[in-house]
Formats: sequence, structure tokens, C-alpha cells
Amino acid sequence: MFDIQRYPQINPPQRLLMGPGPINADPRALRAMASPLIGQYDPAMTGYMNEVMALWREIFRTQNRWTMLVDGTSRAGIEAILLSAIRPGDRVLVPVFGRFGHLLCEIARRCRAEVRSIDVPWGEVFSPQQIEDAIKRVRPRLLLTVHGDTSTTLLQPLDELGDICRRYGVLFYTDATASLGGNELDTDGWGLDAVSAGLQKCLGGPSGSSPVTLSPRMEEVIRRRRRVEQGIRNDSHYDGDDEIIYSNYFDLGMIMDYWGPERLNHHTEATSMLFAARECARIILEEGLDNTLARHALHGRALAAGIQGMGLDTFGSPAHRMSNVLGVVIPAQVHGEAVRQRLLEDFHIEIGTSFGPLQGKIWRIGTMGYNARKDCVLQTLAALEAVLNRLGLKTVQGAAMQAAWDIYDSAGR
Amino acid sequence: MFDIQRYPQINPPQRLLMGPGPINADPRALRAMASPLIGQYDPAMTGYMNEVMALWREIFRTQNRWTMLVDGTSRAGIEAILLSAIRPGDRVLVPVFGRFGHLLCEIARRCRAEVRSIDVPWGEVFSPQQIEDAIKRVRPRLLLTVHGDTSTTLLQPLDELGDICRRYGVLFYTDATASLGGNELDTDGWGLDAVSAGLQKCLGGPSGSSPVTLSPRMEEVIRRRRRVEQGIRNDSHYDGDDEIIYSNYFDLGMIMDYWGPERLNHHTEATSMLFAARECARIILEEGLDNTLARHALHGRALAAGIQGMGLDTFGSPAHRMSNVLGVVIPAQVHGEAVRQRLLEDFHIEIGTSFGPLQGKIWRIGTMGYNARKDCVLQTLAALEAVLNRLGLKTVQGAAMQAAWDIYDSAGR
Repeated sequence: MFDIQRYPQINPPQRLLMGPGPINADPRALRAMASPLIGQYDPAMTGYMNEVMALWREIFRTQNRWTMLVDGTSRAGIEAILLSAIRPGDRVLVPVFGRFGHLLCEIARRCRAEVRSIDVPWGEVFSPQQIEDAIKRVRPRLLLTVHGDTSTTLLQPLDELGDICRRYGVLFYTDATASLGGNELDTDGWGLDAVSAGLQKCLGGPSGSSPVTLSPRMEEVIRRRRRVEQGIRNDSHYDGDDEIIYSNYFDLGMIMDYWGPERLNHHTEATSMLFAARECARIILEEGLDNTLARHALHGRALAAGIQGMGLDTFGSPAHRMSNVLGVVIPAQVHGEAVRQRLLEDFHIEIGTSFGPLQGKIWRIGTMGYNARKDCVLQTLAALEAVLNRLGLKTVQGAAMQAAWDIYDSAGR
Repeated sequence: MFDIQRYPQINPPQRLLMGPGPINADPRALRAMASPLIGQYDPAMTGYMNEVMALWREIFRTQNRWTMLVDGTSRAGIEAILLSAIRPGDRVLVPVFGRFGHLLCEIARRCRAEVRSIDVPWGEVFSPQQIEDAIKRVRPRLLLTVHGDTSTTLLQPLDELGDICRRYGVLFYTDATASLGGNELDTDGWGLDAVSAGLQKCLGGPSGSSPVTLSPRMEEVIRRRRRVEQGIRNDSHYDGDDEIIYSNYFDLGMIMDYWGPERLNHHTEATSMLFAARECARIILEEGLDNTLARHALHGRALAAGIQGMGLDTFGSPAHRMSNVLGVVIPAQVHGEAVRQRLLEDFHIEIGTSFGPLQGKIWRIGTMGYNARKDCVLQTLAALEAVLNRLGLKTVQGAAMQAAWDIYDSAGR
């Protein structure tokens, strides 16, 4: 017998989310979602949609007209771009340096692409030369990259790849879910044709809306498919034409017609998520994007200094680390999951585990978005040290905190 | 030069949304979204996911284990089911009685189905016999139906179709986006294999989360594809196997593994939308689903009586009307859009326009979810009558309101 009394009003525990994301959303973003709804074609609504486009152009550092939201999680934005850009049989190149590179391969395969990947061990990234060599060898139509891969905590340099892609006539996409807002990303300056993101990392919001931006070159690729598809839309069954996108929901041609002045009806906008996405961008631009980037860099440095001050090793080359997620080598004397569990239960602080080749080897500690703050970093360091001590691992008393404080002091923060 | 001052905090106008949806969300659902976030595998989070499954089983009237959320709008749920169930070349039958039937055809075509449709004029629905005859003729693998189609305001009877589908070995799906919670729907009793919905109609929430339920039969169809797909997942490129689902995001096999005890990582849950979906179900079950259905029926009747008391004609046979959206024939003396505009500007009340064969012929007035209330109905009737009078259309003074009050009085409300 169903008993509604067993389902009280929602009341989640207060956690400090210092893993690789999602993190605690900025309360202003959460409150924006509680705003009353308005109709889909209310002038107030279409006005907000236009504002969202303008605000996110700034975050992506782009003039791209088609800068908008896909209604779903960050993975929805990835899939919308891949499904809309890849025709069955297209060859794509994916440099894989962590889990999310494998995801791009997997999605591209489902788009019936011919997927070619190159690999480096987890903990390394690719040089531009390695990627250019692979492009020369593979001759792909698209280069699919991950900017920051939280599985390894590393950041793939992208700034030289746009020129390479132009030279070989390759479309250039990056998944910036984990990096955008916390690490420099220059869509236009780097020659990116498509970028997708999610709100739940450095952007300080909840998962559920995926900002994307498309270059004019990418727009033309998508519009050409749409023109073909419209010509045969009324056929009674599949005629084998590879131009038809395998999705209505993720058809960026339709989504452009919905965000553009045509306002052609598509999905029913996830208005509350759109309000959150607008607020996330607004908060960053109020701080100033450069300041937001500097804030992530500062707190990332302080976290790393504190970890090292505790006598622990950090993972990956500092030259290629994301500012917002730090890999911490789990010391041999403790069990990684026991530490995580005690942090969660006793301190309500969540840090990340790892998987794949790094399983059991590193923790991943994030300091991003709303949680790229001094108090979050210091609380996490103090709690982690206390748990390690309790589990029998000795540290030099005060050294970890002092190392972090030194960073803050020298930055005047 | 970008000027953040031009983008103040969000502040949408207060509207009374009495169109075909989205409608004003219940403030409790909006507030649930402002709850703090928790980690994806936090015991509190997986607990909430299990609760969501239990609550929505009650709303769908089902024992189906796989009753869960797709992260996206109602269209995302439709597409997840169609992409996961339809293999390229599968024959599907779609009885089309309005716009959303055409949408099912369109999505099924993109899944490379062989799509066969049957049609009735907008304003009618199908008899079970008509559908059985078509099944006998077409011999489809799936029957794709719309339960309530807001474009015509009509409700397709589904209660006899499950037996028919069983007899011919057909999988039976319905899109209940516009009907669920406001019109009887009995997933198990009617033999449905898959149902999808959205929060933004009778369920009283915002768009952005799509509850779905899958029968054991549908589960087996999806799991079989997943088994095949897992066998070839590591191939370097597409080998032509039609069992691979054309989407990672909408692969219900993966989504089951994420909601099930395996908790295999898939997308990053849109936690705030999940909180809203939980609250929407909770609110209905607190009222009691039968009471919620009766409430929609009562206010739908009162609205229709008031409209008729105003001397206006309602659209479609009362035997097949949805309880929650009423078609109102636009009187010849006024311009439909002028009336809608004045209602929105002067009263902040939104009613719906129409499209397709009904464009310019009817308004669509909704009374559903949080807005299935006496005050909403009476405000809308009074405002509409005032606007019509102002635009020169005479009505019998007091008759419309009296007709609605009579309904409420006789129901003791």
C-alpha cells in the first residue's frame, strides 16, 4: 500500500562538493530557477533567450551568432553537435587522453562515423605536432577534442589546433564542459567551429542545460543537411539519405530556427534551466571573466600547495593541469575510499574517486565555480589532514595550511 | 562593448498561463529546485532517485520497475523511447489526429522506421476498430499513439488498444505529455509498453524533465539491443549493425543501468529538475491522484460552461475532449490575436492560439496542474468577457460567470 507520508518535502543534506563536479551551485543560480514561468513566445521570454545568447557569447569569447542552449545535460550538448555535424561514414579523429575522449568516440560511433583515435597514457596530453601528424595520416572531416578531462585532471592545449584544422579543411570541436569559466578558452581566437559545455563545473550552476556555440562554418554544414532533409521530410519512410539527422531533439538546425527570429516551435523550453543558465553567465560577467579565471587559478594553486604541504603528491604535469580539479596521489598507508567516506560522513565534504587506469590511485579534488573560494579550500585541506591523521598517517603539523595561506597572502587575498 | 549593467537579475512578469502549456508551475515545485545540490552517488541522491521511481509508478499507475526520468523536455522522453525501441527498417503505425501525431511520425522517420500513419480530420479521434483494422493491414512492430493532443484538445481512448496490440504482437507506446495527471491513464490496466510525459502540463512543474515508464516487454526489447551493442562496442567503426542505438544520451539501456542498482555512470543527473519531478509527483499523491483527476474534470467543466454561457462555441465532441485544454471557437466579430494580445497586456493572462487546420479558428484555454483552480477559471472568464465586450462583442451580462458558478455550486466547491 502506497503511503505518501514516507515521502516528505525534499531536504537534502548540506554537503560541500569538492569533487570533479557537480559542485554546489551558486545560490543565485538556484534562486533564479525558482522564478515564475512565462509563456514560450511571451516577449519577456524571447527577450531572455536573446539575452542568454549575448551573455554566453562573452563566456565563450565568440561573435558566433549561434550561441544558445541545448535542453539537457552537458552530454546532450555534445551529442547535439556530433549528431548534427557527423554524416554516417564521415571520418573523425579523436585524441583520447582520458575518459571523456572515449565518450566522444562512443557517441561518434553511434552517429555511424568512422572513428579514428590516438592515445596517450592517462596523465599526459597531446602536442600540436602529434595531432597534426594524425590529421595528415587520417584525413578526418572532424577533429573531436576534450578540453579539460576531469578523469585525468589534465587540460589539452587547443590554441594551435585551429590553424592546423584550417590547413587540412577539418572541422574543430571541443567539449569544454569541465574547463569553461575556469581555464582560458577562446572560441574565435583558437578557430573552434563548435564548443559545448554544462553548467555544473566552473560555471557554478546545476546540471541540466548545455550552452553551445557554432561557427558560421559549422552553421553552414548543419543548414545544408537541413535543406536536404526538408526536401524529403514528407516521404513515408527512410530512403537511405545520409543527410537526415538521426534525431529531432538534437537537430541543431531546428534548434537554430527556434532560437532565431523565425521562432519555429521545437521543444518546450526548459525555462527554469534557461533562467539558471542566464544567471550563471551573468554572475561570471559581473565578476569579469578574466577575474573568474584568475580566481580559479588562485584557489587551484592554493589547494595544490596545501596538498603538497601535507606531504602528498599531486598528479600530472603542472604545465597541463586544469586549474579546477587536482589529482592527489593516495598515500600507500591509507585506503582511498575509507578517507572519502569519513570526509563525507563526518565533515559532509565530498571529494572524488577515480576510475580506469587511475582507480584507487588518486583522489580528485575540485575547486571550481561557486566553490572556488578560500573557505572551501581551507576547510577541505583541514578536514583531509584531520582524517589522514586519524587514520594513522602523520603530517607536519600546520605545514599544509601554512602553504595554502602563503599563496593567499602573496596574492593579497 | 559589452555592458553587464544591461543584464539585471531575472525578473519575469507575473503571468497567469491559461494556454495549452506550459502553465504556472506550483511554487513548491519551483522551490524544490532551489534545494542545495548533492553528489551523484551520495546516498541521499540515490535515495531520492529510488523515491522518484516509486512516486512516478503511482502517477503512471504501474508496477513497471523502469519508471524513471529522461533529462530533457517531454520531447526528450519521446525520442528516448522511439530511438531505443525502433530498429532501422521496423514498421510503425501512427494514428494521427493532431500535431503531435505528426511529431511521432517525424521522429520515427529519423529512427529510420518505415512509418505508416492513419489520419482523421482535426477534431476527431480514432475508434479502436479503426486502429485494429490498420494494425491488421500494416502489421507494425510498434503502435505509436498520442494520448491527449493539445493541438486539437482531444483525447484518444487507449483502454482497448492494449488487448489489440497483444493479439497482433505489437508494442504499444503513448505520449501522455499533455494528459497525464489530468485525465485517466492506466499504464498496466491498458497494457501500455511505454509511456512518456513532461512536467509542464497537468503535473504542475516546469519543462525540462521527462518521466517515462517501460513494461518488462519493452525492457527486454531494449536490453537485447544493449547486449548486441556491448558485444561490438569496441570496434573502431560502424559495422552496419542495426541494433546499435543512434544515441548515447537517449539509450534507455544505459539509463536503466544508471537508475538501477548497478549505478553505472551515464549523464550527470540534472539534479534540480529531478527535485522538481519528485515534488510534482509528491504534491499530486498528497492530494490523491483520483482527487487530482477530479479537480481537472471539475475546472474543465466550469470553464466550458462559462465559455458557453458567454455565447461562444466549444470545439470538439465533449465525449473526447481533454479535461485540461478547451478549444473555443473564435467568434467572427473579433480578431483572435487582438483578443489574446489584450488579455496578455492588460490582464497578464495568456491563452493559446492554434495552428495547422485550426489556425485562426479556435483559441485554446488550459486549466491544468497548479492552474486547475476556481480563481484561475473565474479570472480568465471575466477577463475574456471584458475584452470581448470592449472589442464590440455583446454578451448576456452575468451569464458566463453564473454558468461557471453553477458548476462549482453543484459540486459544493
